[in-house]
Amino acid sequence: MSPKTTVILVIILNFHLIWASDPDPVQDFCIPDTKPGSTSHIHFSNLPCKNSPEVIADDFVFSGIKSAGNFTETGFFAKSVTPTLFPGLSTLGMSFVRADLDVGGINAPHFHPRATEVAFVLEGMVYSGFVDSTNRVYARVIEKGEVMVFPRGLVHFQMNVGDSPATILGSFNSQNPGIQRIPEAVFGSGIRYELLEKAFGLSAREVGLLRRRFISNGKR
Amino acid sequence: MSPKTTVILVIILNFHLIWASDPDPVQDFCIPDTKPGSTSHIHFSNLPCKNSPEVIADDFVFSGIKSAGNFTETGFFAKSVTPTLFPGLSTLGMSFVRADLDVGGINAPHFHPRATEVAFVLEGMVYSGFVDSTNRVYARVIEKGEVMVFPRGLVHFQMNVGDSPATILGSFNSQNPGIQRIPEAVFGSGIRYELLEKAFGLSAREVGLLRRRFISNGKR
Amino acid sequence: MSPKTTVILVIILNFHLIWASDPDPVQDFCIPDTKPGSTSHIHFSNLPCKNSPEVIADDFVFSGIKSAGNFTETGFFAKSVTPTLFPGLSTLGMSFVRADLDVGGINAPHFHPRATEVAFVLEGMVYSGFVDSTNRVYARVIEKGEVMVFPRGLVHFQMNVGDSPATILGSFNSQNPGIQRIPEAVFGSGIRYELLEKAFGLSAREVGLLRRRFISNGKR
Amino acid sequence: MSPKTTVILVIILNFHLIWASDPDPVQDFCIPDTKPGSTSHIHFSNLPCKNSPEVIADDFVFSGIKSAGNFTETGFFAKSVTPTLFPGLSTLGMSFVRADLDVGGINAPHFHPRATEVAFVLEGMVYSGFVDSTNRVYARVIEKGEVMVFPRGLVHFQMNVGDSPATILGSFNSQNPGIQRIPEAVFGSGIRYELLEKAFGLSAREVGLLRRRFISNGKR
Amino acid sequence: MSPKTTVILVIILNFHLIWASDPDPVQDFCIPDTKPGSTSHIHFSNLPCKNSPEVIADDFVFSGIKSAGNFTETGFFAKSVTPTLFPGLSTLGMSFVRADLDVGGINAPHFHPRATEVAFVLEGMVYSGFVDSTNRVYARVIEKGEVMVFPRGLVHFQMNVGDSPATILGSFNSQNPGIQRIPEAVFGSGIRYELLEKAFGLSAREVGLLRRRFISNGKR
Amino acid sequence: MSPKTTVILVIILNFHLIWASDPDPVQDFCIPDTKPGSTSHIHFSNLPCKNSPEVIADDFVFSGIKSAGNFTETGFFAKSVTPTLFPGLSTLGMSFVRADLDVGGINAPHFHPRATEVAFVLEGMVYSGFVDSTNRVYARVIEKGEVMVFPRGLVHFQMNVGDSPATILGSFNSQNPGIQRIPEAVFGSGIRYELLEKAFGLSAREVGLLRRRFISNGKR
Repeated sequence: MSPKTTVILVIILNFHLIWASDPDPVQDFCIPDTKPGSTSHIHFSNLPCKNSPEVIADDFVFSGIKSAGNFTETGFFAKSVTPTLFPGLSTLGMSFVRADLDVGGINAPHFHPRATEVAFVLEGMVYSGFVDSTNRVYARVIEKGEVMVFPRGLVHFQMNVGDSPATILGSFNSQNPGIQRIPEAVFGSGIRYELLEKAFGLSAREVGLLRRRFISNGKR
Repeated sequence: MSPKTTVILVIILNFHLIWASDPDPVQDFCIPDTKPGSTSHIHFSNLPCKNSPEVIADDFVFSGIKSAGNFTETGFFAKSVTPTLFPGLSTLGMSFVRADLDVGGINAPHFHPRATEVAFVLEGMVYSGFVDSTNRVYARVIEKGEVMVFPRGLVHFQMNVGDSPATILGSFNSQNPGIQRIPEAVFGSGIRYELLEKAFGLSAREVGLLRRRFISNGKR
Repeated sequence: MSPKTTVILVIILNFHLIWASDPDPVQDFCIPDTKPGSTSHIHFSNLPCKNSPEVIADDFVFSGIKSAGNFTETGFFAKSVTPTLFPGLSTLGMSFVRADLDVGGINAPHFHPRATEVAFVLEGMVYSGFVDSTNRVYARVIEKGEVMVFPRGLVHFQMNVGDSPATILGSFNSQNPGIQRIPEAVFGSGIRYELLEKAFGLSAREVGLLRRRFISNGKR
Repeated sequence: MSPKTTVILVIILNFHLIWASDPDPVQDFCIPDTKPGSTSHIHFSNLPCKNSPEVIADDFVFSGIKSAGNFTETGFFAKSVTPTLFPGLSTLGMSFVRADLDVGGINAPHFHPRATEVAFVLEGMVYSGFVDSTNRVYARVIEKGEVMVFPRGLVHFQMNVGDSPATILGSFNSQNPGIQRIPEAVFGSGIRYELLEKAFGLSAREVGLLRRRFISNGKR
Repeated sequence: MSPKTTVILVIILNFHLIWASDPDPVQDFCIPDTKPGSTSHIHFSNLPCKNSPEVIADDFVFSGIKSAGNFTETGFFAKSVTPTLFPGLSTLGMSFVRADLDVGGINAPHFHPRATEVAFVLEGMVYSGFVDSTNRVYARVIEKGEVMVFPRGLVHFQMNVGDSPATILGSFNSQNPGIQRIPEAVFGSGIRYELLEKAFGLSAREVGLLRRRFISNGKR
Repeated sequence: MSPKTTVILVIILNFHLIWASDPDPVQDFCIPDTKPGSTSHIHFSNLPCKNSPEVIADDFVFSGIKSAGNFTETGFFAKSVTPTLFPGLSTLGMSFVRADLDVGGINAPHFHPRATEVAFVLEGMVYSGFVDSTNRVYARVIEKGEVMVFPRGLVHFQMNVGDSPATILGSFNSQNPGIQRIPEAVFGSGIRYELLEKAFGLSAREVGLLRRRFISNGKR
């Protein structure tokens, strides 16, 4: 095999293809092909589609959110279902999430850069709300069977105020809404101390404490 | 008051304003104003927005799908929640539906012209599927906690194959996905007998029976 | 050559790439490359673009709908022109169709999941209409030189009511509008008998007859 | 009647409402209401929709391009059909045009800022083409039954090179594609002489001649 | 005048119309009419358009960002230019901002829910960056003549690290990108103490201090 | 290596992938990979994305428009910055341009098929304007610190009317707005003489002179 060939194959294996856009698909659907050889290195939403005869009903069914997983320290569990987990969503402009809150647990303030969320309470009593561009908060307790909508790109949050675990099913109008959790994005990402001190009116020590709390391993 | 003035006011009261488009809102949200004077004649999605100080958290919460209503003859109940019922959805590009199926009940073949649907089974065992542009069906039984996706504009259907009522929560990536139920749209809408006879290979009598079954009162 | 290499090449040859979206191209145009080596297995709308110097005026001209082909049993002929047939349409958000109707011929109720259609009558007298989301039909006879518009995703139909063949030119605002023909999609796709019986109020025998009439060879 | 009332009515009568966007309608259709009282001063695409029961099949049919009108000096006739002429197109993202060319007649270089055009030759032999962003021209003669596509926003043109009048049916993927005819837009719009002299390398006299040729009455 | 009339006029004066969407205008432009009678109560982006003859070149020119205004406590000044300030931007899908930073001044972490920003440094040395969905920060010092891009909906920030005031010109691909400043949105909006304590690992006293620092007058 | 393999590799190296659309990215960003092996033959906006750990802050900073380059004969310099020059813009729906005008220099009438432009005057006095679909011109002199907006797809132009060089920073709401310069697109592209003579009312000699002036080397 020539050296040239080798280089090309490395590229195909190691990078995912650019670009995709939520609105207005030009095909009925596209089930990314994940068989051996396409390898897990390739971003799912950019894999080639399966040929039609290979697509089956199971490709459009997802069974992975029947139950919650382990809670975090703040009593939270979430499983986001985008095309990476559920390839059948590819190109269809939607995704969803199951979130569970332990008694007193919280879903810290966060937002989704690319989607509105419709959140349905499957179980529990949840203090739930969002903040608009004028810094007004719209929040109240919602209960089983109630639905709250969080407009695209606005900071929102939830806290279980009932006496049993709560479960929420959220739907998004993007196949990959993205997420920024405020504590981690602001204090755990590596923004310069000086800027954070001035932005929040905190001392270097206070920013340092927050930073150590939220920075993940391996961050720069 | 001059006659000209009268005419104009009648127009304002009786018609809803034109046009709206799902993608990319240019404001955080818009709660249509429904106070006395705007009258129920005006299409909700085209009402003026409430002024910001009048908007409250309740505007973003919907409590009307906690339970099912009466089943139809085919064992079906559905409540579609668009901005008409839940004004907080306006301009946000999403809506949802609660559907219930009695034992053996069906949700007849139908499609939504303007949205993909993500359907989550809250209770029950549901035979669920859709048909693609090549007339292939993708269908199987899904159960509580499972999710099926129906790509935009494709015919889909559901049937309760379990031994207790089933409940489904569907989400859409349009604030008004629209719906066409095949039996009613084709046989109950008033399309000429001759065309339907030829299209389905049925006799005039057979088409007549189907027509009487599906035509609503007051149809032309 | 290593086994790994073989697998990758098979993937490239056998699958088409994912994703594309109608609105807002980011280039003037893109003529998919179809020379030997790209093979007919690859979906046209996802082929690489030709290099600019290889693009010629002929790439933007289509000559394949000058005449009708053979009529079906219901007196219908249609040739849909999407990027697969006319690569110059790629990324431009439009496609078109020539449809011919023999005397008494019909274009059975169908819809396009992803486009509005503007239908121009080139020849003949055509009973033409569509059904809206409230199951109202809007239909009348239109003649040579007249145009009817079918809104996106709504069921529509045509029947030649004149005494000579009719020809229609339809344009779409999607490069791949898709199509679902109701008789085939509902009765010929393999949806369970029981569901169809209940949906249409038909007996098992009646559904069976319709199924045999509309199922294609090789369907599951 | 109070002065305040008078002011408001003047506003309603004299201005058209802002805003509308081609993609993704949130309703089946919208037939603007044009009855007495709404007056012709209001832009059609922003009128209120008719109430559903008032909408009829005729609202979706256009009969005004069965024949050509008078040719201009350059042997050209065109009738653009947007919602202003054919209200049924409102919100549906499409429009169309009938263009006729006398023997030797031309459709001068022009472009549509907001749409791709698919042009179908109904009669005649037409030299037809467009220019891309690198100033390459793609042009050839097309004949009855052939179709040429002009990508969104690119300069294109047509000339009847046959020995009988030609007729073209153009479709657009915008309800209001807009148009800029180069001779009139550049030389007839009132751009300063000095800039045009430098841009085209022409003398003041030459620019003056072109200006007089293309400026319309009443231009500033 | 009848009571009914009075109610209607109040509505027209006090509320702004719903809905608008950034992409794909269906007209060349729309200059909202702001003359007496339309009143300042109406949201600019939903006013009727001026009639064409009333539109002038000045409608498309903005002169209000030639100089900076007073700095805030954190050494920051910003003037966002959307259709409210510059009506000519209406329906065109763009807006812009002038931001000035005193020596050591900061633009606190914030994001724009509906737009990407291209930020051009007109003067000064600016530490500038953003955080992605995985909480990685991309930041460095940029200087006069350099440009940084902040992807849609991601938290970004700036700090003047030079020894003279800095000026930045930011452009957005939405006519109303919106903004959420993290300190004010999270600590100054009225989210329950308990949730914020848990989210940031702070004491009630610490949250209280932050709340007093960032809450605006008149917030609930 | 088999002949089949060779063919495939040639395709991958020589063509760029099809398709991309400005609106609504489904990922935070995408930095096209340009390392050896991907080769310069591939269109930047369709390269695979870099893996996240390889992306750095510099990928989002552009330093190439700090100064002007050489002026053309008409006293003009422009550097358009799209993803080809600044890969960080990929998928983000924006691009920009630096334009410089010598004393008396012009930016000839041109338009961008796919974007609105917001033009900020960094230095100088510039006669600046555009033409709408009705051939009305909107033009005036703007100076340092002023901004003019050119609606999507409309012909616009600039001329330095001050006594020192002028600099303009233009922003676009497309990652690749495209451009058609009228003199070159119309007279330098190879449109048939006869059509241009009739369109502009010029003699064959006059068209010939314009053609020689604007045709580039190597045009057909």
